[in-house]
Amino acid sequence: MSTDTASKRLLSSQTEVRVDWKKRKAEINETKKQRKESKLIKQLDKQKQQEAAEREQLERCQNKKGRGYTVSVAVPGSVLDNAQSPELRTYLAGQIARACVVFCVDEIVVFDEYGEDVKSVEGEFKGVGKKGQACIQLARILQYLECPQYLRKWFFPKHQDLQYAGLLNPLDSPHHMRIDEESEYREGIVLDRPSKHGKGSLVNCGMRKDVRIDKQLQSGLRVTVQLNNKQKQDSKMYQGVVVAPHVPRIEGGLYWGYSVRLASCLSAVFTECPYKEGYDVTIGTSERGSNMDETTLSPFKHLLIIFGGLQGLEASVDSDQNLEVTDPSVLFDLYLNTCPGQGSRTIRTEEAILISMSGLRQKITAAFSDVSNGS
Amino acid sequence: MSTDTASKRLLSSQTEVRVDWKKRKAEINETKKQRKESKLIKQLDKQKQQEAAEREQLERCQNKKGRGYTVSVAVPGSVLDNAQSPELRTYLAGQIARACVVFCVDEIVVFDEYGEDVKSVEGEFKGVGKKGQACIQLARILQYLECPQYLRKWFFPKHQDLQYAGLLNPLDSPHHMRIDEESEYREGIVLDRPSKHGKGSLVNCGMRKDVRIDKQLQSGLRVTVQLNNKQKQDSKMYQGVVVAPHVPRIEGGLYWGYSVRLASCLSAVFTECPYKEGYDVTIGTSERGSNMDETTLSPFKHLLIIFGGLQGLEASVDSDQNLEVTDPSVLFDLYLNTCPGQGSRTIRTEEAILISMSGLRQKITAAFSDVSNGS
Ligand SMILES: C[S@@+](CC[C@H](N)C(=O)[O-])C[C@H]1O[C@@H](n2cnc3c(N)ncnc32)[C@H](O)[C@@H]1O
Ligand SMILES: C[S@@+](CC[C@H](N)C(=O)[O-])C[C@H]1O[C@@H](n2cnc3c(N)ncnc32)[C@H](O)[C@@H]1O
Repeated sequence: MSTDTASKRLLSSQTEVRVDWKKRKAEINETKKQRKESKLIKQLDKQKQQEAAEREQLERCQNKKGRGYTVSVAVPGSVLDNAQSPELRTYLAGQIARACVVFCVDEIVVFDEYGEDVKSVEGEFKGVGKKGQACIQLARILQYLECPQYLRKWFFPKHQDLQYAGLLNPLDSPHHMRIDEESEYREGIVLDRPSKHGKGSLVNCGMRKDVRIDKQLQSGLRVTVQLNNKQKQDSKMYQGVVVAPHVPRIEGGLYWGYSVRLASCLSAVFTECPYKEGYDVTIGTSERGSNMDETTLSPFKHLLIIFGGLQGLEASVDSDQNLEVTDPSVLFDLYLNTCPGQGSRTIRTEEAILISMSGLRQKITAAFSDVSNGS
Repeated sequence: MSTDTASKRLLSSQTEVRVDWKKRKAEINETKKQRKESKLIKQLDKQKQQEAAEREQLERCQNKKGRGYTVSVAVPGSVLDNAQSPELRTYLAGQIARACVVFCVDEIVVFDEYGEDVKSVEGEFKGVGKKGQACIQLARILQYLECPQYLRKWFFPKHQDLQYAGLLNPLDSPHHMRIDEESEYREGIVLDRPSKHGKGSLVNCGMRKDVRIDKQLQSGLRVTVQLNNKQKQDSKMYQGVVVAPHVPRIEGGLYWGYSVRLASCLSAVFTECPYKEGYDVTIGTSERGSNMDETTLSPFKHLLIIFGGLQGLEASVDSDQNLEVTDPSVLFDLYLNTCPGQGSRTIRTEEAILISMSGLRQKITAAFSDVSNGS
């Protein structure tokens, strides 16, 4: 065949009229058809491979060693006010949720940038006020997205903050299990079913059967369940035990979603830390920070990364009466410019989260890969 | 005052009833008022500082040495079909534009992921077909956003692709000058005004006066103008010369926006490269690529970074009849996973651009900082 083709090519370049174009075209069409068919077969193969890869990725998460540290992100709720329509407001909240999930963030703190409340001597504390509407909506959408789909009908009754939830892109995180997916851990809700004395409560974990847990718990609670290694196939329910929500991360090495916390002002982000040791490394972000390329991180237990709103962290510092400083850089262990040489005058907060976390991810990995223990 | 306060504190802890709460409250209010006032003053100072910083940032760009290399990004237009409403479709296009501008991308190539066209022997070439609607819309929005606001009325007549352009966030790049901003370079449009023999055309560069350039050019052309160092203040117009659009980057060290190119299939992204030397480093991106943390870059002239759509680059390779391969990794110099350990099963293309470019920015900086010349 190859000499044949070669001679034809020779011919056509010498005496072009003598090429039989009809025949040529038929040949080409035949080749095209064959190619298409073989492509189709390859595509089917690919599809199968991709499905396998998705499963594998999940397992990769599960097989890797547990992660001992946590990463928290703080953002002002006011970023929502920067959106141009209620739909885009919702979408923006979703962008923040996805950015945090992509980088395995364990806690999102929504703070009130305009929080002027001082905890006064009389002990009166107004909390997140009128201006905090954006904070509450952001927090609600973040919680809604974090909740596995099969639990949402219980935990999220209709609410106007969620009116455009249909536009939100799913988080697709490992703890959002599909009905038949196998996993050691699952999120569930304690059911309101009478259980016999000495037997634990029933939990709906989004599987075809409910799960009998080891404890009697109040119905309506959201719980993390560790399923028993071996299940009786003919049993009417699965067996499992309730564990703390950090167990899948620490023992299973799984990313298990984030918790959401509201803070009435910037300082409350620090002072109301849920970890009893507090945050041991805090990073403020700003185009006026120092070049992140020249920074390395040491291993930490609880990292906190703080983003500003439209006016930057300066604005949050200015309006926080608990803070005497005006220069935000003194508040944080590091104050970093995570995008030196930026080609736009300003980077939006939702963009800055992806940009900053992507840069910091490498530094976090480096911090822990030097340590023999891995965490 | 301080001993006074100290003694009061002592008192109140011993005999709480004797504290004069009214007086105490008045004092607190007075302190609050003072704090507020001093905050206000500080805030005004801050505002001034911020304005100065913005200007400075622009100048920083201008003062740094010229950049000799270019960075191109390729994305399939089909990503728009992934949006849930016409508004979000527009918004997504804007996200891509902003992501590229933040990282100083010089060229955006929009390719047709489903491009099945072979340039057949008969020379018939259908180009971007029906399915290319998303490609054309994406390209149009990218061009619209790149065009300085003062030129848009000429270059972008009403078009349904731009119906929701009001929702787009501005790029805020250095070549989008405000009317009174001073800059060596400006984008302009050649005006349709008779000019005397031997004199050059007039150009509107979005300033209070038009610019007389050195050449006679066809009216309606978009041009890059270098303004003369010294201008006569009393003259009715400014003086300048027309330069190539890459001059502000190479000589001024300024980021000067991006050009937009349509490619009818993945292979055309490579074969129709506008740089005569072609792209010397190409990077494909995929969660199945190799870990980017283990890669370094060498200096390059023209870098190309390619992103896939909903189905990844595999899909683009599969439907491109010019490509015999099915494994995309063999097409590129590097095939990189830019987000190892991702906490979501999939990363969306618009997210992947920010994430990947942020990771690659550090590697690009490193590549050129080892070289004495800087470019
Ligand atoms: C719209 S920007 C704030 C801009 C504001 N004019 C300022 O001067 O800070 C919103 C937030 O994005 C983050 N951000 C923007 N650019 C950044 C950069 N180059 N490095 C780190 N964070 C940045 C910061 O958290 C910032 O508070
Ligand atoms: C929705 S993803 C494609 C997912 C598709 N299922 C696949 O298997 O490739 C769209 C694009 O984002 C980019 N992307 C997503 N995750 C990435 C990662 N971890 N590293 C590099 N690029 C990624 C790639 O360009 C990809 O083609």
